[in-house]
Amino acid sequence: MRRVSFEEMSCSVGRSLEQIGEWWTLLIIRDAMFGVRRFDELQEHLGISRNILAARLDKLVTDGIMERRRYQERPPRDEYVLTDKGKDLWEVMILLRQWGDRWVSGEGNEPLLLEHRACGHTTTAQLVCSACGEQLERRAVRSVPGPGDPDPVLLNRLHAAG
Amino acid sequence: MRRVSFEEMSCSVGRSLEQIGEWWTLLIIRDAMFGVRRFDELQEHLGISRNILAARLDKLVTDGIMERRRYQERPPRDEYVLTDKGKDLWEVMILLRQWGDRWVSGEGNEPLLLEHRACGHTTTAQLVCSACGEQLERRAVRSVPGPGDPDPVLLNRLHAAG
Repeated sequence: MRRVSFEEMSCSVGRSLEQIGEWWTLLIIRDAMFGVRRFDELQEHLGISRNILAARLDKLVTDGIMERRRYQERPPRDEYVLTDKGKDLWEVMILLRQWGDRWVSGEGNEPLLLEHRACGHTTTAQLVCSACGEQLERRAVRSVPGPGDPDPVLLNRLHAAG
Repeated sequence: MRRVSFEEMSCSVGRSLEQIGEWWTLLIIRDAMFGVRRFDELQEHLGISRNILAARLDKLVTDGIMERRRYQERPPRDEYVLTDKGKDLWEVMILLRQWGDRWVSGEGNEPLLLEHRACGHTTTAQLVCSACGEQLERRAVRSVPGPGDPDPVLLNRLHAAG
């Protein structure tokens, strides 16, 4: 059974997952955000096979999430840096980390915390509405059809929910 | 080569990915958020094999992200609903969708939009600092060691970055 390409799905979550929805891919992006960018360093840190790592990096480059940069000529060695598209995943990464802190690592056992340099405090990222500035609560938001041809099954559910 | 369990990683991103870091898993959670909860509905909508779907649902139940609920006795049929832990992924899901809207679907081609019921406007979720309330910018935040024994490689990079 061959799965449908997620890229063909009429849903930006599905389309995103086609590009980043795999364990290694997100961990490679996490490492790059911390400055772990060289093939050998990534391989050692992630404990991943060289074949799989090379394939994931190739896909990240093809998808425009990372760029390959030669940092040494003899022997030739590359490092992988995030493009603007890749760097823009920082928000997803922070919220994923906060979810893991809450539900997997547990309070008081956070491996890393986030500091807001501007105010100097340890912070938790919170979601607010771009229109009114109020904090967003789960029950106070709902999905509505957009201009880009939504997935019919999800659209049906939205209509059923009113 | 056997990979290290992500759950053993000293990083909440890694630990989270052990539980949700797989395409199908996140799409199952997305569907559940829209009310697609029955095994047959999920199977049809995702175009996933029954074996893989059953395995993913079992893992989601084991990890406490979903609950199995019998909705029909003869023949026995179950649906899968999100627990509080699962519902709490809504923020990650919204930011992943917004990233996909920006970088994969593209502006003007968003399949779904988000509406803030409280103010009645179409909204984009933005991150603000829990301490000072200001909008968070990527360059204005940094990770710092937490109480929970951070990953030594990432910790080294933090120290190197100052």
